[in-house]
Amino acid sequence: MSEWHLARGYRFAGIVSGLRTEPDRRDLAVIVSDSPAAAAGVFTQNRVCAAPVQVSRERLPRPDARAIVICSGNANACTGEQGLADARRMTELVAAELGCPPEQVLVASTGVIGRPLPMPVLEAGVPKATREVAPGRDAFSNAAHAILTTDTGIKIATRRHAGFTVTGFAKGAAMIGPNMATMLGFVLTDAAVAPTDLQRILKIAAEQSFNSISVEGHTSTNDTVFLLANGSGPPLAGAELDAFAHEVRHVCIELARKIIIDAEGAEHLVTIDVEGCRTDAEAKQIAKTIAESALVKTAVFGADPNWGRVVSAAGYSGVAFEEKDLSLWMGDMLLYRSGAPLPFDAAAASAYLKHNREVHFKLKFTLGSGRSTFYTSDLTTEYVRLNADYTT
Amino acid sequence: MSEWHLARGYRFAGIVSGLRTEPDRRDLAVIVSDSPAAAAGVFTQNRVCAAPVQVSRERLPRPDARAIVICSGNANACTGEQGLADARRMTELVAAELGCPPEQVLVASTGVIGRPLPMPVLEAGVPKATREVAPGRDAFSNAAHAILTTDTGIKIATRRHAGFTVTGFAKGAAMIGPNMATMLGFVLTDAAVAPTDLQRILKIAAEQSFNSISVEGHTSTNDTVFLLANGSGPPLAGAELDAFAHEVRHVCIELARKIIIDAEGAEHLVTIDVEGCRTDAEAKQIAKTIAESALVKTAVFGADPNWGRVVSAAGYSGVAFEEKDLSLWMGDMLLYRSGAPLPFDAAAASAYLKHNREVHFKLKFTLGSGRSTFYTSDLTTEYVRLNADYTT
Repeated sequence: MSEWHLARGYRFAGIVSGLRTEPDRRDLAVIVSDSPAAAAGVFTQNRVCAAPVQVSRERLPRPDARAIVICSGNANACTGEQGLADARRMTELVAAELGCPPEQVLVASTGVIGRPLPMPVLEAGVPKATREVAPGRDAFSNAAHAILTTDTGIKIATRRHAGFTVTGFAKGAAMIGPNMATMLGFVLTDAAVAPTDLQRILKIAAEQSFNSISVEGHTSTNDTVFLLANGSGPPLAGAELDAFAHEVRHVCIELARKIIIDAEGAEHLVTIDVEGCRTDAEAKQIAKTIAESALVKTAVFGADPNWGRVVSAAGYSGVAFEEKDLSLWMGDMLLYRSGAPLPFDAAAASAYLKHNREVHFKLKFTLGSGRSTFYTSDLTTEYVRLNADYTT
Repeated sequence: MSEWHLARGYRFAGIVSGLRTEPDRRDLAVIVSDSPAAAAGVFTQNRVCAAPVQVSRERLPRPDARAIVICSGNANACTGEQGLADARRMTELVAAELGCPPEQVLVASTGVIGRPLPMPVLEAGVPKATREVAPGRDAFSNAAHAILTTDTGIKIATRRHAGFTVTGFAKGAAMIGPNMATMLGFVLTDAAVAPTDLQRILKIAAEQSFNSISVEGHTSTNDTVFLLANGSGPPLAGAELDAFAHEVRHVCIELARKIIIDAEGAEHLVTIDVEGCRTDAEAKQIAKTIAESALVKTAVFGADPNWGRVVSAAGYSGVAFEEKDLSLWMGDMLLYRSGAPLPFDAAAASAYLKHNREVHFKLKFTLGSGRSTFYTSDLTTEYVRLNADYTT
């Protein structure tokens, strides 16, 4: 792992509670802020959203968050009224240890949908994890591990600027559809920032990061990103606040890219740049449609420079354009110019896909200045194998 | 093949022209109507549509179609102005043999996108195929074979009623997204029906058949269905015209189901019934979203009764509902009732998926009387393998 920095004033725990069937697998994390922290959140746009999403959403934004509790292995989604009661109970167990109201505690979950939480496990585990929180890298690493499901490793991104630190960690490897992925993200800072500023900054950052990635376009029930600012560092305003927003955006984009790099079975990180559209939203709609095309994704897996699949995906995106408006590059190779195919070296194009872990498509339209950058993975036989046998 | 019937007054050819690299692979079909036929067509809704789609679309509906020419192996899509000239030339070559204006000839193509047609092959092949047309089953079977790409067999559906016959044949195994699939369909009748009636009847039939199927949701550049009525049989009006529309709809649904059964790598035909929605369109939007979820499709492949993936796909469909509005059945098993999970026998549920070639999900909402039936395939490792190596 490259150098990284921990925001001041936070303590962490990640324990083996017994939620998961694998012994020694950390599955329960608690984050405590030493002082009440301004807190913002963004959540899944799925109509079917998990109990912890409903509970946390109604508590945010707020100026005085004290803790976050997260369990992995069970999503607590599609679990009815019992699920809501269980999610609230998780926050009460933390609050009792900290001596604060439950409303100051946030909650997130990830894992299988449709199973009631095993509450006896959590009645014992949550207080234990809360009592064990500690500052420093080991405790942080334990928490980052405890939120993982099919991820192959922890995902961390940090930035430092002008006396403050932004520390983010996330999980996610499938059920990744924009708005957002089956992903959880936690971004912590020691800067002092007002809750409404935090919420605005997080929304913009999420739009360009966690909402601009896709593994298979399946929007999860549990997506959650929290941004906490506990004011251990300097208060921010004006240009410094803009700088803070910039750093948060970078941390979110880095985490989002790490999710795609670790996508289930993936062998490629595919970046799709769309420019020259009427609006950014239209550019994103085209990029997202290409990113979610199984035929584009299998072609990248097979190193097959079948660029017609990219152009035809743009064509069914719902955005109006004429073929003559469009040119397409794969890496540096111009394959399609103003609606007509160009001769190209198929062997070189295939080699580009075969020998690069990160590959790049650019679509340039002549309709305006709207643009979008979107990230996706390839679709591999391993992805299908992994997802054909998940719950059973 | 079960019993089938040929509409009167049509002749067929399907020849080995040399368009495809495999020797002895039929790749060029011609259908000739003995008398001028009323003709209707429905086409892809992709903004990037192939040259033959553009040429045929501007010629329909019409009262006097004489022939259809179809090539497989090359889609003549994303081929610019040259592609349009080539598609028109294909119709001219047929017209010259028949002694009719080119406008009375329709054209369709399917295959790889972005490659110019090898016109010397077609300059020789199209006149030859046109001269070889013959009535009867052998000639019809040759034509049905000549339009295939990755299909494992021909797809035919026929109905007889009150003195008329409807004969349909189709191709399609991938790049199957509603509106429509990479599919070609040809429905022929000897009834006498006016062009405007034909167009209306075909539009409704396509909506419930070819536009209600998905393999991977990738809308092709070439989708085309033609409906020809040459009046060799009785003229239809009133109740008889309604009966005709009913038979056309049945033929289209049967062809659409055959496309999904033959989907690349597929091991299951998945029928998704959604009922109790505010409108049919909302029901279809939910059914389509489930049908296109890679996570639902891999779960079916793996016989994994992971029903949370179905509910969560409904949740991100864009249709507004509350969890309590929704109940879900898999086969006869009620898994989720009014927003809460029910205990179920996971082994029996897995066995249902494992031992049935055709499986069934039903979602029942409490919002109205809108409904939709949608068909999809499972997503298998074989699908990925087939699509990772297509052009090269």
